[in-house]
Parts: sequence; C-alpha cells; structure tokens
Amino acid sequence: MRYIAARPEGKICLFGAPFDSTTSFRPGSRFGPAALREASYSLETYSPIQDADLTDVSFMDSGDIELPFGDPAPALSLIRARTEDILSAGRVPFLLGGEHLVTLGVVQALADARPGLKVIHLDAHADLRQDYLGQSLSHATVMRRIADFLGPDNIRQIGIRSLDRPERELVNRLQSTANDAITWAGACPCYITCDLDILDPSIFPGTGTPEPGGMSFSELVQTLIALVSQVSCAGLDVVELAPNQDLSGVSAVVAAKVVRECLIALGT
Amino acid sequence: MRYIAARPEGKICLFGAPFDSTTSFRPGSRFGPAALREASYSLETYSPIQDADLTDVSFMDSGDIELPFGDPAPALSLIRARTEDILSAGRVPFLLGGEHLVTLGVVQALADARPGLKVIHLDAHADLRQDYLGQSLSHATVMRRIADFLGPDNIRQIGIRSLDRPERELVNRLQSTANDAITWAGACPCYITCDLDILDPSIFPGTGTPEPGGMSFSELVQTLIALVSQVSCAGLDVVELAPNQDLSGVSAVVAAKVVRECLIALGT
Amino acid sequence: MRYIAARPEGKICLFGAPFDSTTSFRPGSRFGPAALREASYSLETYSPIQDADLTDVSFMDSGDIELPFGDPAPALSLIRARTEDILSAGRVPFLLGGEHLVTLGVVQALADARPGLKVIHLDAHADLRQDYLGQSLSHATVMRRIADFLGPDNIRQIGIRSLDRPERELVNRLQSTANDAITWAGACPCYITCDLDILDPSIFPGTGTPEPGGMSFSELVQTLIALVSQVSCAGLDVVELAPNQDLSGVSAVVAAKVVRECLIALGT
Amino acid sequence: MRYIAARPEGKICLFGAPFDSTTSFRPGSRFGPAALREASYSLETYSPIQDADLTDVSFMDSGDIELPFGDPAPALSLIRARTEDILSAGRVPFLLGGEHLVTLGVVQALADARPGLKVIHLDAHADLRQDYLGQSLSHATVMRRIADFLGPDNIRQIGIRSLDRPERELVNRLQSTANDAITWAGACPCYITCDLDILDPSIFPGTGTPEPGGMSFSELVQTLIALVSQVSCAGLDVVELAPNQDLSGVSAVVAAKVVRECLIALGT
Amino acid sequence: MRYIAARPEGKICLFGAPFDSTTSFRPGSRFGPAALREASYSLETYSPIQDADLTDVSFMDSGDIELPFGDPAPALSLIRARTEDILSAGRVPFLLGGEHLVTLGVVQALADARPGLKVIHLDAHADLRQDYLGQSLSHATVMRRIADFLGPDNIRQIGIRSLDRPERELVNRLQSTANDAITWAGACPCYITCDLDILDPSIFPGTGTPEPGGMSFSELVQTLIALVSQVSCAGLDVVELAPNQDLSGVSAVVAAKVVRECLIALGT
Amino acid sequence: MRYIAARPEGKICLFGAPFDSTTSFRPGSRFGPAALREASYSLETYSPIQDADLTDVSFMDSGDIELPFGDPAPALSLIRARTEDILSAGRVPFLLGGEHLVTLGVVQALADARPGLKVIHLDAHADLRQDYLGQSLSHATVMRRIADFLGPDNIRQIGIRSLDRPERELVNRLQSTANDAITWAGACPCYITCDLDILDPSIFPGTGTPEPGGMSFSELVQTLIALVSQVSCAGLDVVELAPNQDLSGVSAVVAAKVVRECLIALGT
Repeated sequence: MRYIAARPEGKICLFGAPFDSTTSFRPGSRFGPAALREASYSLETYSPIQDADLTDVSFMDSGDIELPFGDPAPALSLIRARTEDILSAGRVPFLLGGEHLVTLGVVQALADARPGLKVIHLDAHADLRQDYLGQSLSHATVMRRIADFLGPDNIRQIGIRSLDRPERELVNRLQSTANDAITWAGACPCYITCDLDILDPSIFPGTGTPEPGGMSFSELVQTLIALVSQVSCAGLDVVELAPNQDLSGVSAVVAAKVVRECLIALGT
Repeated sequence: MRYIAARPEGKICLFGAPFDSTTSFRPGSRFGPAALREASYSLETYSPIQDADLTDVSFMDSGDIELPFGDPAPALSLIRARTEDILSAGRVPFLLGGEHLVTLGVVQALADARPGLKVIHLDAHADLRQDYLGQSLSHATVMRRIADFLGPDNIRQIGIRSLDRPERELVNRLQSTANDAITWAGACPCYITCDLDILDPSIFPGTGTPEPGGMSFSELVQTLIALVSQVSCAGLDVVELAPNQDLSGVSAVVAAKVVRECLIALGT
Repeated sequence: MRYIAARPEGKICLFGAPFDSTTSFRPGSRFGPAALREASYSLETYSPIQDADLTDVSFMDSGDIELPFGDPAPALSLIRARTEDILSAGRVPFLLGGEHLVTLGVVQALADARPGLKVIHLDAHADLRQDYLGQSLSHATVMRRIADFLGPDNIRQIGIRSLDRPERELVNRLQSTANDAITWAGACPCYITCDLDILDPSIFPGTGTPEPGGMSFSELVQTLIALVSQVSCAGLDVVELAPNQDLSGVSAVVAAKVVRECLIALGT
Repeated sequence: MRYIAARPEGKICLFGAPFDSTTSFRPGSRFGPAALREASYSLETYSPIQDADLTDVSFMDSGDIELPFGDPAPALSLIRARTEDILSAGRVPFLLGGEHLVTLGVVQALADARPGLKVIHLDAHADLRQDYLGQSLSHATVMRRIADFLGPDNIRQIGIRSLDRPERELVNRLQSTANDAITWAGACPCYITCDLDILDPSIFPGTGTPEPGGMSFSELVQTLIALVSQVSCAGLDVVELAPNQDLSGVSAVVAAKVVRECLIALGT
Repeated sequence: MRYIAARPEGKICLFGAPFDSTTSFRPGSRFGPAALREASYSLETYSPIQDADLTDVSFMDSGDIELPFGDPAPALSLIRARTEDILSAGRVPFLLGGEHLVTLGVVQALADARPGLKVIHLDAHADLRQDYLGQSLSHATVMRRIADFLGPDNIRQIGIRSLDRPERELVNRLQSTANDAITWAGACPCYITCDLDILDPSIFPGTGTPEPGGMSFSELVQTLIALVSQVSCAGLDVVELAPNQDLSGVSAVVAAKVVRECLIALGT
Repeated sequence: MRYIAARPEGKICLFGAPFDSTTSFRPGSRFGPAALREASYSLETYSPIQDADLTDVSFMDSGDIELPFGDPAPALSLIRARTEDILSAGRVPFLLGGEHLVTLGVVQALADARPGLKVIHLDAHADLRQDYLGQSLSHATVMRRIADFLGPDNIRQIGIRSLDRPERELVNRLQSTANDAITWAGACPCYITCDLDILDPSIFPGTGTPEPGGMSFSELVQTLIALVSQVSCAGLDVVELAPNQDLSGVSAVVAAKVVRECLIALGT
C-alpha cells in the first residue's frame, strides 16, 4: 500500500511516538510505528468494508518524534509540542504509539485547544491507577492522569476486562458501548484512544501485556468506524503495538489495517 | 500420521510445487510442502468430523517437483507437465503449494484434459490484477491469467476480502457461497483452489500476505468438505503455507488437517 | 501479579511437574511451570469474571518437583509421593504440568486417599490408547492407565476432537458436557484434569500437539469455573503448556489466567 | 548513527536493490537494505579503526529501487538504469543487496562507462556456474555472467571456500589475496563486490547460504579498507544480508559496520 | 546437494536415531537427523578441504529408526538391532543423533562384532557420571556405560571442557589429542563418537547443553579428517544437533558439512 | 548447577537489578538476571579453568530488587540502598544487570563506604558522554556520571571499541590492559564493572547494542580471573545481558559461566 509515506500534506496528520520506557512487562512498543508503516505495504488502499479508498483521503505522515528514553517527562513535552504544531496547522492529530502513556501528551495539547474535550478509551486495561510502583507517569496510570485535568466524567471506556480491585467502582461508572458513547459525546470534540490490546491475543499477540478473552478484529473495526464517523473527532491514536513480541508479523498488519479503516472513516 | 508418504499408488495424487519467486511481501511458501508433510505426523488418520479414516482412501504422494527459482515460466511448464503425467495415469491431481501462481500450471493442463472445466477459488485476495509491478505472471494475477483462457464466467470466488478498486466490479460478479457454487458447477468438472490465507491470521499466521478478518477453521473445513464431495472434483490445491512465518508450527498443522479432510471427502 | 509465589501456607497447594520425556511430537512442557509463574506477573489478582480477588484465596506454591528425564516410572513415583504429602497436610493438590502423563501420579495418590474418586477430563485428544509405539506409559495412554484402576465409568471427557478409530467407541461412551458431568459427579470426590490443548491453537499455540478447531478461551474458563465450583473438587491440574512453541508468550499468559480463575473458583 | 538517510547530496551514492527471487536455499535478502539502514542507528559515526568520522564523508542515500519479483530480467534493467543515472551525476555507486545477482546490473552499467573495468569479488561461493537448474540468471551464476562480457581475466576472487568441481580450475586461476589484487588492479577502475557470506556464519548467520569456516569480522574489514583505499574504486556493493535468518539482529549490525568502514575508506 | 538421500546402496550406511528423552536441559535433538538432511541441500558435494567429491564415495542413507519416547531401554535395543543389520550387510554404520545416549546402542553392537574395539570420544562434556538424578541411562552417563563393558582404557577423550569434580581423575586419565589418539588406536577397530557441542556455541548454538569456550569449525574438521582417515574406523556418529535451538539454521549446516567431510575422509 | 539460589548466607552477595528503561536501541536487559539464573542450571559447579568448585565458595543470592520503570532516579536510589544493606552486613556486592546505568547506584554506595575506590571498566562502548538525547542518566553516560564524583583518573577502561569523536581524548587517557590495571590499582579497593557486550556478538548476541569485532570468551574469562583475584575487589557487576535478543539461549549461558568464574576467582 505504501499508504503512510505517500503524501507530505493533508488534513489528517499521522505521527509516531516510539517510546516504551514505563512498560512494566514486555517492552517493544517503541518499534510500533516503524513496523506499522512497513506492514502497510502488504495492504490494498481500497477498503471493501467501507467501499472507499485511502487514495481519496487527505492525510499526511510527519514521521516519528525523536524521544529520549528513561524519564517520561521530557518525552511527553515533546509529544505535546508536536501536537500543538499539528493543531496550529489546522490538522487532526493521529498518533501511532508507543506505549499508552504517550496519549497523555496529545490530550494535554488538545484539552487546551478544544474546550469541552471528551475522551473515548478503548482498552483491555482500565489504566486508572493513582500510581504504579510509586511512579505517577506510567502506562498503567495514563487515564487517571487525564482524568486529573479533564475530570473522570469526560471519559468513557469500552472493552475493559482487566483492573485492580480499587479501580472497580470508577470502571463501572465509566464503562460504555460504542452506541452509548456516541450519544454521550454529542457534538463535543472527542479524542479516541485505542490500546490495541483490547483485541484478543490470538489476533494481536504483539503487545506488552496480552490479556486473554478479548474483542475480535471485526468487532474492533466496526466499533472504531462507528465512533470515528459519528462523533466530532478531534484526534485519535492507536497504541501498544509491540511487534517484537509477534514474529509472525500479523500484529503489525492488524494495526495497519485498523489505521487504514480509521483514516477512511475520518477522511471520507 | 505419516499419511502422505504412506503409499506409492493411489487414485488421488499429491504433489508439491515449492516455488515462491513472485511473492511480493514475505517469501517462504517454497517451504510449504515439506512442512505440511512433517506436520501430518502429529495428526490421527481418523476424522471425527467425517467419521472416516484416511487409511481407507486411495491416494499417493509423488513428492515435490524440482523447480528453478526466478523467472516463473519454466516452473509453470514443469508443473503443467507433471499434471499431465498424473492425468495420463488416470489420477486426480492434488497440488501442495507454493505460492498461488503454481495453480496456473495445473489448470492449464486440466483445461486441455477436461473440457468445460470450472474453477472455484477460495481466497482472501481476488488475484485478478491484469499485471503486478509490470509482471503478468504473479501470485496477484493468477486468477486473471486463468480467466484469460477459461473465461471469467467459469470462475466463482469465495471469501474474498481484499482487492484493488479496479477489481471491484469483477469480484462482485464472481463472488459466491459454497451452496451457490455447488449449484452453479452442476455436473461440470471442477477445480478447487484454496489459498489458505482465506483463514483469519489468528489461526493461520504462516502465510505471505496475512489479511485480518478471515474465516474460522471450522468454516473453511465445512466449506471444503461440501465442495469436494458435492461437485465433480477434477483436481484441487492447497497453497500459500509459508511455515517460516509461523514459528509455533500451528499453520503447518492447520494445512495438514485441511488436506486430510479434503482427501477423505474426495476419496470416500 | 506475583500470585503464585506469594504464600508459603494455604489450603490449596500448587506444585509443578516439569517432565515431558514421552512427548512424541514437540517437547517443551517441562518448561511449563516456570513460564506460567513468570507470566502470572502480568495479570491482576482481581477477576472481573468472578468479581473476586486472588488475595482472598488460601493457597500456596510448593514449587517444582525435581524429576529425572527418560524412563517415566521414577518421575511418576515422585509425583505420587509429593501428592501424598500434600494430602497428608490436608491440602488440595493443584498440579502444573508438564506433559499429560504426570496426571497419573496425582490420581494414583488421590484414588487411595479419596474412595469413590471420579475424574473429569478436558482435552482435545482422547488419551485412551492401550499403548503408544509399544510404551504403556505415555501422554497418549494416560487416561487408559487411569481407567485401568479407576474403571472407565468413573471418567467423563469434555472437548475431545482427536482420536484413533479404535478409541471411538469408548470416547462416545465417556463424552459429556460441563452440566452433565456436574450432575454425574454428584457428591463424589472429583479430580479435574485440563489439557490446555483443548483450546484452539489460535489462542494456545504453545503446546506439544496443537489440534485445529478447538474451544475459545471464554468457553474453557466458563466450563472450568462451573466444574470447580459445583463438584466436590478433590484436586486438579493444568497441563501441556509448552512455552517454547509460542515465542509471543501468550500461551503462558493464557495458562496463568486459567489457573487464576480455577484458584478463585475453588477458594472463594 | 542515522548515517544513511542523513544527506540528500554527496559524492558516493548508496542505493538498495531489494530483490531475492533467484535465491535457491533461503530467501530474505530483499529485506537487507531496510534492515541495514535500521541497524545503522546503533552505531557511532566515528570509526576507531580508521580514526575518522562518517560525518566528514560526502555521501548520500537515494533509497531502494522498486523492483518486481519473479523474472530477474526486468529487475536487472532497472538496477542498470539507476546505476547509469548515478554515474551520469558523477557519483560513485554503492549498492546494498539483495541477492548477489543484483551486482550484474551495476557492472553492466559500469563496464560501459569505465573502459578497462576490473572486478574484485569477495565471497564464500565461486558463483561461476554456467547455469543453475537451467536458469542462466541466478545468484550462483552471476560472476560467470560478468565474465561473459568482461572476460574472466578481469576478475579476481578472495575468500572462496565453496564450489562445484567443474568450477575448480577457474577458481584456482582467479583466486587472490588483498595485496595481490591491489597490485593486479593497478590504476584500472575497479568494482568491488562483497558477498557477506564470506564471513563465518558465527558472526554472520543472516544470509541465504551460510558456509561454515569463513573469515572473521576483523579480517574482512581490514581487507575491504585496504582494497577500497588502494585501488581506483569505481563502485562497490555489499550483498546477501538476509536479516530474517538472524533474529538476534547482529548480522544487520555487522553489515552496517562494514558499510560504514567502506564509506570512510572511500571518502576520506 | 541432496547428498544423503541419493543412493540406496553403499559401503557406509547413514541412519538416524531421533531420540532425546533423557536430555536434561533443552530437548530437540530428536529433530537433528531431519534438519541435517534438509541442510545438506545447501552444500556442494565437492570439498575444497580434501579436494574430493562426495559423488565418488560409496554410501547410502537407510533413514531414521522409529523410536518410542520415554524409557530409553527399548530405543537402545532398536538402535542396537539396526546396527547389527548394517554390520551383517558388511557396511560401516554412521549414526546421526539424537542425544548422546544413542551412541550406546551402536557401540554395544560393534563391541560384539569387532573384538578389541576402541572408542575415541569428542565432546565438551565428559559424560562419565555413574548416574544422573538416579538414572543410569542418560546423555550424561553414556561414556561410563560404555566404559562398563569396554573398560575405560579403551576410551580416549578429546576436547572435554566441562565435568563434575568426581569425574576429574578419570578425565585426566583419558584425555588425548588427535595425534596421540591415532597412535594409541594403532590397527585396532575404532569407533569415533562426536558430540557437536565440542564446538564453541558461537558456531554451533543448536544443541542441548551449549558450553562456552569450545573448538572452532576448522579445528574440528581437521581433527575428524585426521582421525577418520588414519585409524581403522569401524563406525562413527555425529550427535546432539538440536536444530530448534538455532533458528538461523546455521547449526544444521555445520553438522551437514561435518558429515560431508567425514564421509569423504572415510570413503576416498 | 542451580548454583545461585543455593545458599541464603555467604560472603559474596549476588543481587539483580532488572531495569532497562534508558536503553536506546533494543530493550530486554531487564530479563537478564532471571535468564542468567535459569541458565546456571546447565553448568557444572566445577571449573576446569581454575580447578576449583563453586561449592567451596561462600556466596548467596538475595534476589532481584523490585524496580519501577521509566524515570531512572528512583531505581538508582533503590539499588544504592540495597548495596548499602549488603555492605553493612559485611558482604561483597555482586550485581547482575540490567542495563549499564544500574552500576551507578552500586558505585555511589561503595564510594562512600570504601574511600579511595577505583573502578575498572570492561566494555565495548566508552559510556562517557556528557548526556544522551538530553538525558544525563543513561546507559551511554554512566561512566561519565561516575567520573563526576570519583574523578576520571580513578577509572581505567579495557576493551573499548566504540565511541563518539568527542570521547576520544578521554578514552585514550583511560584505556588500559588487565596487567596495567592491576598494577595501577595496587592495594586500593577496586570495583569491576563488566558490560558483556565487550564480547564479540558471535559469542554474545543477546545484548542491547552489539558491536562487531570484540573479545573472545577465553580472553574475557582470563582477563576477569586475573583482575578479580589480583586486585582488592570491593564489588563487581556483570551487565547488559538481554536474553530476548538471543533465542538460542547461548548468551545467558555465557553470562552464567562468566559469573561462575568470577565467584570462584573471588571466593577461593
């Protein structure tokens, strides 16, 4: 397909955040953006699901941000700054992770630029811990950090099947379905963050924390198409592809196909 | 099971075409026939699905054709010649690929030997391109090459979920289901070609171009049993196992079980 | 989660039997117990499925038995002796395999200690051969060896999808469902043995003899929770994780999650 | 290091030929150029061996040629055309393979542009067969095809340790050492082609046809530095990195370091 | 090369013993014979080292013995019986392992047939333990079992670099060099057993118990050529290739090249 | 061998620091300590090199520190605190990494406890950068951070073969050999830090930043035995084993054998 590198200008702006320093179980999502781009070569630009073609979508790829490993604070600042640049140019940011923590930098920038922002969170894990092994900035705390400034009631969660007992009450309050989330979002600007471990590990083994018992590929794609095309989508991300965990290469192809469908749903 | 190497004589003749030179994304289907034979050791000869045993089927394995890599024309000639030998001996050819292009050599031989031949094509990809990067002989053009001499109306497709926009009209015209294809075929001699990437990559990651969102193992086996036992089957193939892409070895076992069920459906 | 090593005392006693010398196709289940413990770190202690937490369950892990490879007789004696120790201490044995033959040592000890013992067998393969390549002690004969002293009518099988034709009659007689097995077991002490290859290889490729066409993760977990919580469970095992066959590591996580759900179902 | 993509202009022009359709044993050198570039990130630009820095070398990377798979003739034409463009711009071509056959396209272009061209061939295999399985264009015949138009006496070979008996006489005639080859070349324009399987497979397992008993890394680097800096180097290539055969990634790093040393030797 | 399967008759008789049930660390040498045969396709029949061609050697391949896993006693009986058949036909047995214990079956047969038999043992490990975890038949005891009936003074060891302290005295007594062993053997019939882990793990990682600090490929080949061609070689073996431990495939190629050189040294 | 877990008390105290958050190229050294312990099972306790046995050495293993990922400052504090505990108990700290940055925590503690401390640094890389991508705490800056408080003249380096040009002058000043370093150290307390990538990648591919052209196994072991037994060794570490990069498992065995030789050299 070679879809991603195809165009230097466009309304939707892809960018990669190759960072995974807080990953606690199995690192490797730093290799996600490169693997996703490479896998996109094996796919067609035409989507039979939406009967539309990526060549009709206005998008670009601004490449990966060069991020330092270790302390996540400087990396998050760089992600936030890049997002602000994208927004200043009037484009819609579409982030490719990297671990889930990278989402924080994008949402910080968007919350400033788009008052009333809401977040729809697709994931296997709640990511609502107050801290993780003493660290406040972690892939396991990212939604709590977002809730700190956006308020938990501006977040809805879909697909959560793993949580700590202390997270249970909040998860029950935030859980939703695609249809309910669309109604809830109304005309507000919405950010959609998709941790690909929402998929069952049989279809997506290439991730840091696989959680058995997840969604099928078709369910995820249908959910995302519905969300992206029916809310006022201010930005989105697809995170937690760790291609080194899946030597068959299928996980990268799955991620690339998810991105294709999102681009078409958003851009046509 | 050791089923494949078991008998030097039989009505159905297995043979391998270890060729993958036109594979564009990930080569390795050249290793398919050997891996499939090896994997057959882990399976029983008895099929609970059909309540029948492979030891009651008259089949043989004539081994792999020694094929040169590079230019596909000489390889296709050798496949065609071997098929003609098998047909001359009154046997039913059952090819193990190799990339999908190898099917062309078999169908060329069969079209001469069996007037009125029809082809039922199970696949994730339409394979109907006029050419691919300037090459007319390619895994991505094989069904178009067959349509060139057989006519597109003597082809039906099942399971297609990836195509280029220019292929759309023809795909819509040829698409079918197992039941409709059986009715359509009637008493005509039928060749069945099965690209195993019709399966979802979760069950069959070991292939050159995995396409997320495919068929389950049970669906494929039920489809193939119905087709093989209800049409006048003049030959068949199972292609695109690339075992080097699946280090778990499961894809080779899947392919071997598909072949077992086809042999039993055809031979009992 | 670090759940397994957490407690030196408890009512349920985990122990590992790293043995795979009779495995005929692909060895590696000797690495199962260690991989399962390691994978447990990636899981939470809380189960949303049962709305209960492993931290409320009284269990311990007594580690792996040091077993010699080769002739299985001494290994089985050691497993039997360890089980007798566990039973003497008033604990419920929960074995982590290893190949399926290790189950024999546990059931020998339990049959003495708990008169009227019945066995519920979850598996893809019947394991009822009289012998295998001349060996009476094998992963392929283990249920027949158990039937030798317990009687076949004290065994029920769930999920069998691979058998030799001579096993067919006995398999038909023993096959059951979770509900029927619960009724059948009544108040009798029951041992539950779960060969994880009952799962489809897409979700569990890390096993010695993958058999396409199996159970989903949710089906298995629901079945096990029903059995463990509704029969009088005298012991159980989870066997045939061969983590070296699944470089994605997902199979070990699947096994660890199955064990978590069984511990919670048994201990709360 | 990010050395390769660093500069759009320069005296030495890197370009990739991702082609491996005639590879007879294990394909994958099509992935060589991409893996080599990626691996270059892990290396410094400074060479302690030559006490010089890549940042002082005038070079560029014009990327990979898009090549069709299958019949090698069109691919070779495209490689030849690209080489002609590079020569027209007054640059020195530095090809990254791909299988060894790709060398033919470059040498065809150079032989026209640089009368009196000689070739120094570093390899484990003689590559002097008249044909291979009936194909005249093959990785195993490439030096014979070059000898066809350049004459065998304009070729010298270093490191050959595998050959067919019929090649023995010619190999004996062409074999040389670095020092002898430098003297032999004199002031004539020289093309240096380096098949990395000249290295022992312990240091370079990532190649299509590993041949035990080869050169050490230091020997190869010293040989190449001597050749490149002491002959009149009209072009060079580094071929047969098949990174999919070496999951440790070391082979790609070895290739990248070889390229770094050649660039510095040529450009400083 | 396809050298091994080439001839049904010959003076030297290759046969495989795919058995690894007593392997204590990492199983997989059961896959050794098949991988070695497959790897032989990538090698030429001509040896530049000996300037001789395998096509001039009178040898055959009688394939693998079908061996049961688990208790090693029946497997050893089958190996002994096959060796007796080979000797009865006047052929020289050349065994491909399998774990090192398989050597015992061959030497038992040879000791009867060839009075005065001596054994030259190339290995990283002494294999002289009285028992291993209570088992007397083990890869770690094989040379002690041979010493039991042949006497330790009819054994010489080359390359040992790993032993238990209790083995030290005997190892010191038996250790030798190629030259000394040739003198020592004189005109007596000699069996040569080569555990490939004598090689450094950098060149041969594909083995059950890699021991850092070993021999180079050239040293081993030179040693074996000297031994095989200068003693009265009554039989030989090459064992402990575990190809599943080396995904690069290089170890299998190394083993195949060792076998090629031994065949040529013995048969020309 | 099971050597590491063998004893709860001892003069030398092993401990693991599973941290790799600042690794810039390929993460995975967090898995080093666990893999090294597991690999130690395959080795004997007796060392033929030193003719001594690990069972005579007084050592213990206090296990791994639980470290948070991300910002390295808290992890370094925990490593320093653990080292202080070990020193307070009168033991010699022997750290198993993790990435090289973990060394900083140990040396901080030792510098306080042992005035006049010197450091001998074995490595492929100089690790003397002032900062790396703006981060002052990094695997690439660790020796510069140590030089900040210890002074560069209390450091000697062995084996460096990769550096940035600005590091050249300092590297030239600090470079040494084993013999010179022993003389230089005299009776001062010495810390020895060994980054295993000093080895050639052929023998040790399992590391984050493999650098072709390194030391052989025997050279490293002889160097370490000389240093450890001839300086006044106040502590030591072995770091940068990333076992996920070497699926053959050899790198972990190499690391375990290095640790065995160091323990014996230090403790006998």
